[in-house]
Amino acid sequence: MPGLGDVTRGRILFGGDYNPEQWPEETWHEDVRLMKDAGVNSVTLGVFSWATLEPRPGERDFGWLDRLMDLMHEHGIGVVLATPTSSPPPWLGHLHPDTLPVDQDGRTEWWGGRQHFSHSSAVYRRYAAAITEDLAARYGNHPALTMWHINNEYCTYDWGPEAAARFRRWLQDRYGTLAELNDAWGTAFWSQGYGDWAEVHTPRHAHYLKNPAQVLDFKRFTSDMLLECYVAERDIVRRHTPHLPVTSNFMPLWSGQDAWRWAEEEDVVSVDLYPDPRDPFGAQAGALVQDMTRSQARGPWMLMEQAAGPVNWRGVNHPKPRGLNRLWSLQAVARGADAVCYFQWRQSRQGAEKFHSGMVSHAGARGRTYQEVKRLGAELARISGEVTGSHTANDIAVLHDWHSWWAGAHEGRLSTQVDYAQVLTAWHRALWEAHLATDFAHPEHDLSAYRLVVVPQLYSLSDAAIDNLIAYTRQGGTLVSGFLTGITDEDDRVRPGGMDGRLRELFGIRTLHEWWPLDAGEEVECDGFRGTLWSEEIEKDEDATAEAVFKGGELDGLPAVLRKGRARYLATLPEADRLRALIAQFASEADIRPVLDRLPAGVEAVRRGDLLFVLNHSRESVTVEVPGTHHDLLTGTTVADELTLDRYGVAVLRP
Amino acid sequence: MPGLGDVTRGRILFGGDYNPEQWPEETWHEDVRLMKDAGVNSVTLGVFSWATLEPRPGERDFGWLDRLMDLMHEHGIGVVLATPTSSPPPWLGHLHPDTLPVDQDGRTEWWGGRQHFSHSSAVYRRYAAAITEDLAARYGNHPALTMWHINNEYCTYDWGPEAAARFRRWLQDRYGTLAELNDAWGTAFWSQGYGDWAEVHTPRHAHYLKNPAQVLDFKRFTSDMLLECYVAERDIVRRHTPHLPVTSNFMPLWSGQDAWRWAEEEDVVSVDLYPDPRDPFGAQAGALVQDMTRSQARGPWMLMEQAAGPVNWRGVNHPKPRGLNRLWSLQAVARGADAVCYFQWRQSRQGAEKFHSGMVSHAGARGRTYQEVKRLGAELARISGEVTGSHTANDIAVLHDWHSWWAGAHEGRLSTQVDYAQVLTAWHRALWEAHLATDFAHPEHDLSAYRLVVVPQLYSLSDAAIDNLIAYTRQGGTLVSGFLTGITDEDDRVRPGGMDGRLRELFGIRTLHEWWPLDAGEEVECDGFRGTLWSEEIEKDEDATAEAVFKGGELDGLPAVLRKGRARYLATLPEADRLRALIAQFASEADIRPVLDRLPAGVEAVRRGDLLFVLNHSRESVTVEVPGTHHDLLTGTTVADELTLDRYGVAVLRP
Amino acid sequence: MPGLGDVTRGRILFGGDYNPEQWPEETWHEDVRLMKDAGVNSVTLGVFSWATLEPRPGERDFGWLDRLMDLMHEHGIGVVLATPTSSPPPWLGHLHPDTLPVDQDGRTEWWGGRQHFSHSSAVYRRYAAAITEDLAARYGNHPALTMWHINNEYCTYDWGPEAAARFRRWLQDRYGTLAELNDAWGTAFWSQGYGDWAEVHTPRHAHYLKNPAQVLDFKRFTSDMLLECYVAERDIVRRHTPHLPVTSNFMPLWSGQDAWRWAEEEDVVSVDLYPDPRDPFGAQAGALVQDMTRSQARGPWMLMEQAAGPVNWRGVNHPKPRGLNRLWSLQAVARGADAVCYFQWRQSRQGAEKFHSGMVSHAGARGRTYQEVKRLGAELARISGEVTGSHTANDIAVLHDWHSWWAGAHEGRLSTQVDYAQVLTAWHRALWEAHLATDFAHPEHDLSAYRLVVVPQLYSLSDAAIDNLIAYTRQGGTLVSGFLTGITDEDDRVRPGGMDGRLRELFGIRTLHEWWPLDAGEEVECDGFRGTLWSEEIEKDEDATAEAVFKGGELDGLPAVLRKGRARYLATLPEADRLRALIAQFASEADIRPVLDRLPAGVEAVRRGDLLFVLNHSRESVTVEVPGTHHDLLTGTTVADELTLDRYGVAVLRP
Repeated sequence: MPGLGDVTRGRILFGGDYNPEQWPEETWHEDVRLMKDAGVNSVTLGVFSWATLEPRPGERDFGWLDRLMDLMHEHGIGVVLATPTSSPPPWLGHLHPDTLPVDQDGRTEWWGGRQHFSHSSAVYRRYAAAITEDLAARYGNHPALTMWHINNEYCTYDWGPEAAARFRRWLQDRYGTLAELNDAWGTAFWSQGYGDWAEVHTPRHAHYLKNPAQVLDFKRFTSDMLLECYVAERDIVRRHTPHLPVTSNFMPLWSGQDAWRWAEEEDVVSVDLYPDPRDPFGAQAGALVQDMTRSQARGPWMLMEQAAGPVNWRGVNHPKPRGLNRLWSLQAVARGADAVCYFQWRQSRQGAEKFHSGMVSHAGARGRTYQEVKRLGAELARISGEVTGSHTANDIAVLHDWHSWWAGAHEGRLSTQVDYAQVLTAWHRALWEAHLATDFAHPEHDLSAYRLVVVPQLYSLSDAAIDNLIAYTRQGGTLVSGFLTGITDEDDRVRPGGMDGRLRELFGIRTLHEWWPLDAGEEVECDGFRGTLWSEEIEKDEDATAEAVFKGGELDGLPAVLRKGRARYLATLPEADRLRALIAQFASEADIRPVLDRLPAGVEAVRRGDLLFVLNHSRESVTVEVPGTHHDLLTGTTVADELTLDRYGVAVLRP
Repeated sequence: MPGLGDVTRGRILFGGDYNPEQWPEETWHEDVRLMKDAGVNSVTLGVFSWATLEPRPGERDFGWLDRLMDLMHEHGIGVVLATPTSSPPPWLGHLHPDTLPVDQDGRTEWWGGRQHFSHSSAVYRRYAAAITEDLAARYGNHPALTMWHINNEYCTYDWGPEAAARFRRWLQDRYGTLAELNDAWGTAFWSQGYGDWAEVHTPRHAHYLKNPAQVLDFKRFTSDMLLECYVAERDIVRRHTPHLPVTSNFMPLWSGQDAWRWAEEEDVVSVDLYPDPRDPFGAQAGALVQDMTRSQARGPWMLMEQAAGPVNWRGVNHPKPRGLNRLWSLQAVARGADAVCYFQWRQSRQGAEKFHSGMVSHAGARGRTYQEVKRLGAELARISGEVTGSHTANDIAVLHDWHSWWAGAHEGRLSTQVDYAQVLTAWHRALWEAHLATDFAHPEHDLSAYRLVVVPQLYSLSDAAIDNLIAYTRQGGTLVSGFLTGITDEDDRVRPGGMDGRLRELFGIRTLHEWWPLDAGEEVECDGFRGTLWSEEIEKDEDATAEAVFKGGELDGLPAVLRKGRARYLATLPEADRLRALIAQFASEADIRPVLDRLPAGVEAVRRGDLLFVLNHSRESVTVEVPGTHHDLLTGTTVADELTLDRYGVAVLRP
Repeated sequence: MPGLGDVTRGRILFGGDYNPEQWPEETWHEDVRLMKDAGVNSVTLGVFSWATLEPRPGERDFGWLDRLMDLMHEHGIGVVLATPTSSPPPWLGHLHPDTLPVDQDGRTEWWGGRQHFSHSSAVYRRYAAAITEDLAARYGNHPALTMWHINNEYCTYDWGPEAAARFRRWLQDRYGTLAELNDAWGTAFWSQGYGDWAEVHTPRHAHYLKNPAQVLDFKRFTSDMLLECYVAERDIVRRHTPHLPVTSNFMPLWSGQDAWRWAEEEDVVSVDLYPDPRDPFGAQAGALVQDMTRSQARGPWMLMEQAAGPVNWRGVNHPKPRGLNRLWSLQAVARGADAVCYFQWRQSRQGAEKFHSGMVSHAGARGRTYQEVKRLGAELARISGEVTGSHTANDIAVLHDWHSWWAGAHEGRLSTQVDYAQVLTAWHRALWEAHLATDFAHPEHDLSAYRLVVVPQLYSLSDAAIDNLIAYTRQGGTLVSGFLTGITDEDDRVRPGGMDGRLRELFGIRTLHEWWPLDAGEEVECDGFRGTLWSEEIEKDEDATAEAVFKGGELDGLPAVLRKGRARYLATLPEADRLRALIAQFASEADIRPVLDRLPAGVEAVRRGDLLFVLNHSRESVTVEVPGTHHDLLTGTTVADELTLDRYGVAVLRP
């Protein structure tokens, strides 16, 4: 199968979404000149071109795109060609209102924004296939074409009637019979037993709490329907260009797609990444997504979109201070990216995103933004040869699963203060601050290569996943799990005892009497630290050890950190400093070392292949110990034992 | 008429909702064993069984219920049989979408949760009557059957077309002519005059403030329609089993039902009660509902639902600490409950309430929850004989009326900070903290038996109610009223002068110049205390006395507490300590004593019949003075003048 | 053309909305008596009378209004007669549901409130024209009639199908071709190109950000449609009574109408004004609206509605302390009002506004409210002769434009913390606190009469407006502009460079690198003050001067206040004290003096014609220096150099 390496061929891809429909053709020529100056070698075309390519149903207007493809080829810029199917033209919704999504309150999502398509609409899919077919036929052999980009940020839900019909078929495939569905959804409760498939709907507005298994299946169905849309278009372009890789860009840590499943269908895994420049943990938020994406790609991946400056969808949208765009771009490279791309090349003057930055901002070529982009392009070119294609194995895996996330998010859960993404982020932050390099893995993945497996929270676990965890520990692996793990099975059915029995045995939990969720901002005293979010009334097995207990209150003396052999269970979320110390201790016990020792605050060190990236995320100049002699690829200087980095400074060191 | 005494026969009912449809039959046998161990003598069956009993329209599947009824009978457990009409099967909404409620924004409430029925739907009522008829015919003579439970927590609103048609008929019954309706609704304002009944709708989404009298009548209509549903089913079962009592469970202090009116139609008054275990005033919140329910029942009542541990519908759901379930259960008994029941027997593994606790929690029989339930069952059995059937008259009545609550809640009122339920609670808390036993009464009830009548806030009062209050004071009664009382008549028409003239005369208010609502958190200085929520610019009559005045600001020197004879008016809500002191003073003037003197903080004393319940709501051990010699029914010991209670401890003392 | 002077004839109009349909006829006679006592000389009839006048389609019931008109005439009270078209009778929506507005979520706005009419409905307009025609025909010659009041507070939006059709025609008028529309809306972005007019809709609910130019045009369209409704009714009454002026009342600083454009179509400009009595800046909030309204009227104007006490649409509604009604009424007169009117005469006993105060409150004639109204009526009569008709020219203009407000409010803007109305208010407050008398003007108005022009924020500016500003400064005018000015053109298309190039040249901005919006509550240090809301990364021209720079942080040393010649640009919003000092300095440079020097805090001085109004907005007695000898029209005393005013006191001084 083709992959990212077939596109990069030793160069880091640098460029971004290019929407030239917005500009007169004379601007295209200025664009190409500025692209060349900035070292841009890849642009994504066509993401929002459907209405331009097909101005009326069935018509085609390819002339402008022909000229653009030729122009790019002429200047040696590769084209990632998008199918334009994420934003259908107004005529589609007008002629076929059934192609428009309907929300759970029954409101239609009209055109006038974007992504106003129903994943389940047969008419939408037919039109999407037709334009995809024609694009692939026309440009499949174009020498500028390097990769296909299917749709854009798949993210639509649909509760409407055609989606409901499709949901029924999906459920029939999953369950076979209504009896099985009734059993899996627990419809015996609240008199919800279905006697006819036609009675089954998407989980629309209801008087009170919705059936959790129905909601869970609806999320699975949504991810699957979007994937069907993707696969249908992928198969079309693949038929025309079997030698070219195909991707679709994920949104970072977005809840709507099972990206483990999706990644299997992609030749290149790509992601969009927009940490808030003001977020004091922005670098870690980026690192999390980068680690996740690299793990999905099992190798180099593509940063499809980032912003050269501010975005425009936060309440207050901050620009990137001088140097931050370079720093975060190189951080992505350090963590496996072989492509550093942006939305979008030239900032729009019109439309809903005209205040979202571009590589060329409103200030134009003399603006700081473009000037920094240009410098970055030159630096990426300098290091490309020694970076692309390389990959590094890590000793730690953090387990993550979308289905568990979905199941655990039901409105009728015990605490709305417990947010899966926040818990996952807290654990990753502890690892990141301890300078421990980590992968992500699915709970059913082969974990044998890892010395430490971290389960921040897997509320729902399949039997196979539980088998996998137990086998992993039996084979000598070190396991640590946060609370609310193993509560339900794949149907969101609570395991007997309130938590899977084999997991309880693994961790040394004799009886789980009660969960004691904490209020917002509440903390619970433990030995030497404070716990947040959660606590538990656990009776431990005799052969288990309470490494820390709750102090005072109703749970006084009960285990907060429980250990049995190489398996640990945390019945609370320790405050950040303590969680970092615990993780560092567990890693140390598993013979895992930080990337570098004695790193100053705010400095991150990442190994990629033979290279060592040292990144200063602070606004102060810092001196970093780097034992031995290295060559800094960016400056061309030699670094002996010590390195000084200015604010937002980066060194890429070769031993 | 049959009543609760026909069911209890000297035993406190102990048990709860039992939803065995969720479990395989082998579990039923384990359930019965655990029930017997725990002293369970009553279960409620069938609440959510409609889809199981009638899997397809008109079909019946009674076999499983036959077996359950027999099983219960075999083990001496009485059955409260529910009509399953609160949660119709999916096929009903599917075949008859007109049975589904529509909210004020026009959104249908679909199946998939519960209570998705329109109270006004003729089709729904027909199907509900049919299944009720068949249940009554089949089980009316079953020896396990002890009581009927109609529907469950009636609480649905409907703004849809069939409800609108029904609303019109209800209005025709109320007003006779459109002219009367136009007059009552004040439609001369804002050009709302109706010329044809067909123009009259439920108060749907509007551009700006809705007509308050229309909204008020819609709430009355809703309560009446739900009551019609109840009465229709009650009459069916009563025809089959005239010897068995009928109930439907209220939600605690819920705004949607005029429970005074409802209670008249019930043989047994029952209520669901779920104070937050974390609420520092949880015990008082419970006491309020218990006092209210006892007053509606005019004697023993049934605690139909409580939670053995956490619920799952709060943002953060806390379990009950050790002992709290027992404490609050005995508090209910002290305040007149002859039945202590739970939702539900065994905690669900599936469905929307699987994190709502059960008497048997996920941890099973060895879990703390069941163990505590079991101990409680034994204790209830020990005291049953001396408790059931007894009732105690009180000297104080707090007046409460749903119609006034409804009228005062209009969006166009002067202060959204003034919340009826909070004001009512504040006054009840003052009484509770002063250890003054109180009933609730409707403002038109005969009040002659009371020495002190407290009106926290009755914004809307009928002429008859005003007559009643005046007659009460003329006969020597002591009356105290909070602000915003007597403002409007039954049509929500402001009384001339801004407050009923006779009430103004009663309290000594010459002119009510202006209301001065306070901002959130704002306090107003008065003589020796601070007022909250409200203040008023009152010119008093010469023969009235300002017992406290506002200090400083625009109202300096104007009356905050006004007295004329035995009637007092409070133009603000005094801070909690002061309100308690005032209430205690008023009670003392009326020769009313606290239940016990010198009670430590957190300790509650309640008399029921000859018994004295002493309840320690604090987490500290306390010593309580109890003059004389008593026998403690729970411990079997003798108590002489003094009693020590552990945290959450209870004593049930017989002189 | 007739104007306000034709109505006042030397008297300040005093009175208000009178809705006698609510009252029995005997009350009318009491009303007239109280009106005469209070000096009421004008009432507005018929605002909410449609259902009374036309109880069934096409029927007419004028008898009651005949009697009222005669009654008013008999007592010398002029009548402002309203067309009743703001609140159609229930039968209209019932017979013609297409007359009801639909919101962006597809929800119909039903009758039961008010303003439930679609501005685009042909049926509504036909019925509105018919009742207007008949009213004008019947009462055009009535001697009591003094003015026409069309509709009431026009403020409805409509996203429904008839509005969509009308929107299309409006767009066709504006753009001619779809190609022009596509260009103006920037539909090339996000694949929004329209191929058929039928595809163009109102901006309904969408999946993500809506097209900003479409939303902008929808706001323009809405203002224009409402204006069409107004003009249609105005033309009818004008045909019958060409000698009588016509008005429609604006809501204060309301975003929905382009009041500059509307004012051109009105004979009398009138406004409703409801500052919160608790707002510490209530007096300035009132002054802003008064200055704005006077500028629209280009002379005397009409205060159509204010409240004698509380309103009922805030969360907490405060009454007016003693004296405040008089103070704010005289403030309006000082700033050009020749009419001081209220909503409404007698407080309602029923309906949605029964807690909105009236000139006669629930307390009736002996209530404080009416007593103060009566005193005010006498005082207004005393000063009328020397006040009415006079106008004062000011040296300062604040520029304001609704289209710029609309464009700048798009959901995809850089900072939701930046609120146009708040920024405008902040600048006006600075002027008000510096005692600098100001007008408002449209950016395309002739500014040559002003010495200082202030642009708080004009995000969107037409070429003509930019020409106007440049010409103004070339002619020696002093200009100061806040940030976010001149960003886009009339189509909301970002100007090259991120800000209009000629404006950048005017202010000395070489490159606008990035906008740096501030978080909520964040402040940025500048030379000697703190900036709020916003900061900017600007590279200045060499011939420009940074009068203040940002200190510290990313923008250290970059201009915060930039000056080039007589033009200044503020890249942040200085804290209030500093903004006032800056404005005072700029005014001083432009040889503009405060109204009076050395005014104590809270005291406002306003000149109208030859008169000097001195208003004490504080609750303390103050002494004010007033050089020279004056005659106080209110007290009849002589004031020599100094004046003492009690709390809320006012003096009206003639030199």
